[in-house]
Amino acid sequence: MIPTPDDVWRAAERIKGIAQTTPLLNSPVLDEMSGCTLFAKAENLQVTGSFKIRGAGNRLVQLSAEQRKTGVVAFSSGNHAQGVARAARHVNCPAVIVMPSDAPQVKIEGVRRDGADIVLYDRNAQSREEIAANLVEMRGAVLVPSYDDPNIVAGQGTTGLEMVQQARALQTTFEHVIVCAGGGGLGSGMSLAFEAIMPGTELWTAEPEGHDDWARSLNNKTLLANPPGTRSICDAILTPQPGNIPFEIARSRFAGGLVVSDEQVKWAMQVAFSHLKLVLEPGGAVALAAALYALPDHMRGSTVGITLSGGNVDPQLFADCLLA
Amino acid sequence: MIPTPDDVWRAAERIKGIAQTTPLLNSPVLDEMSGCTLFAKAENLQVTGSFKIRGAGNRLVQLSAEQRKTGVVAFSSGNHAQGVARAARHVNCPAVIVMPSDAPQVKIEGVRRDGADIVLYDRNAQSREEIAANLVEMRGAVLVPSYDDPNIVAGQGTTGLEMVQQARALQTTFEHVIVCAGGGGLGSGMSLAFEAIMPGTELWTAEPEGHDDWARSLNNKTLLANPPGTRSICDAILTPQPGNIPFEIARSRFAGGLVVSDEQVKWAMQVAFSHLKLVLEPGGAVALAAALYALPDHMRGSTVGITLSGGNVDPQLFADCLLA
Repeated sequence: MIPTPDDVWRAAERIKGIAQTTPLLNSPVLDEMSGCTLFAKAENLQVTGSFKIRGAGNRLVQLSAEQRKTGVVAFSSGNHAQGVARAARHVNCPAVIVMPSDAPQVKIEGVRRDGADIVLYDRNAQSREEIAANLVEMRGAVLVPSYDDPNIVAGQGTTGLEMVQQARALQTTFEHVIVCAGGGGLGSGMSLAFEAIMPGTELWTAEPEGHDDWARSLNNKTLLANPPGTRSICDAILTPQPGNIPFEIARSRFAGGLVVSDEQVKWAMQVAFSHLKLVLEPGGAVALAAALYALPDHMRGSTVGITLSGGNVDPQLFADCLLA
Repeated sequence: MIPTPDDVWRAAERIKGIAQTTPLLNSPVLDEMSGCTLFAKAENLQVTGSFKIRGAGNRLVQLSAEQRKTGVVAFSSGNHAQGVARAARHVNCPAVIVMPSDAPQVKIEGVRRDGADIVLYDRNAQSREEIAANLVEMRGAVLVPSYDDPNIVAGQGTTGLEMVQQARALQTTFEHVIVCAGGGGLGSGMSLAFEAIMPGTELWTAEPEGHDDWARSLNNKTLLANPPGTRSICDAILTPQPGNIPFEIARSRFAGGLVVSDEQVKWAMQVAFSHLKLVLEPGGAVALAAALYALPDHMRGSTVGITLSGGNVDPQLFADCLLA
């Protein structure tokens, strides 16, 4: 049930040709601004514009011939949706994605482009879990969870494996790594890789205010949910609470959680625009925002890795964030 | 006077530690949109946000100890300015940059951040050549031209060397390469590398309408200027005519020139935003615009390399282009 570092190495083999190795970027300007030596893992440059293809690819290449015929079902606000749709195209299997009707247009288009069917639902009136469960039953399809699944976690963990390999190639070591956290598939998967091959690295989650379930859960060593009804621009990571498997892995492997405001997220998007020439979506910019505006004192002067976990943002929202 | 491929190889050695190896990116969506297999050299991710650091680095590391004391002078609308300022910081020599007062703010800030002095001038009333010549005389400084210089051309040519190496690593060959062209330092330098190590590649310039001096000059086998007073959003590449050294090199090595409208440049910036998650400035997007909207029929279905030559654009202009 709980994946191991070996599962991460196996996932890395399985997703070759589906996901890409993304660059690890450094910028002297960002070093100056953050007060640390910052290395940013640019998963916004990943296939489908986020790390989610890693987990989806790792899950879908393991489908049986029979399962590839009946296909897969997933629900997601967009990045996991695109990962599943692209992975399904790779293994030539039908996919139905349940998405909220207010999902970013760029994410809906991305799913459609890869040939998946989309079922839109009303976020306030309908349950996506129920819709997906019905589809699974009707079609005999396989549900692909977005984070609470050992294969998804192991797939996302390949991000950490690459970061360690890239740091070594630069003859450097991360003293700290900050990971954007929603359900926690990315961070927990990465922590398996770090524990095995760069065990001295201290890991931190990053989240928007009002959705600090990870920070509170890690702090209290127990799984805590967000109060309902809180809002943030970080659509990609607004999960109700940490995933069960991710939290089980992360609770002993993460030092804690950092929290940033939506305003700080916008500033981080502006910094990525001006100094990295990269497009980040709000949820993909929280770790950068934490490094720039909420860095704990003990990290100053150290070597810090961060994830830039996605770049799927609509032009109007991006323009609004740039000029905010 | 005219650099050789050997000068490009030497430049590549000299600029190690000053410039970076930028990624060569492919996107299935862009392949579909362009009708060819497209590989984009992301020089917007280069140090200082454009390829210009390559040439400036190659020139400045060759300054004598004496020249490093008296320093350098350059004039530029911004990308060469930033390249020279950064290279000067590397070799610890003073730099004065003559920039138009209406240069993009992001470029002026970039120069200032690297500690160079800036002399602003009025594009419509003053001659930057005269201002720079006076500074050179007063200070005994070295003028660093932005393209009409063999060391600058050889330095920019390292972009082509890297593209060939990266294509080979992917076991592919460019049948055509399209290069953003202002003075032509980048394209002419790249053509030296291609002729030497990937000689079957057909090279094309890309320019905005009204500034099609390269297309007309290549077509007529003689150096032709732009009519005065034409406008375009592509500030980085609005040179009056091809550089003498660049044209001398390129005239026999380029197949011709492609021309795109400012509107097509904006669309290309939108495509880079949506599908590459990259920030391009208008002048850095002309080759992509040509591949997407002005691809000659004989290139359809072929493997095409393009330069994404810069990403230094002010937020307001970028937002305007995104929403155009």
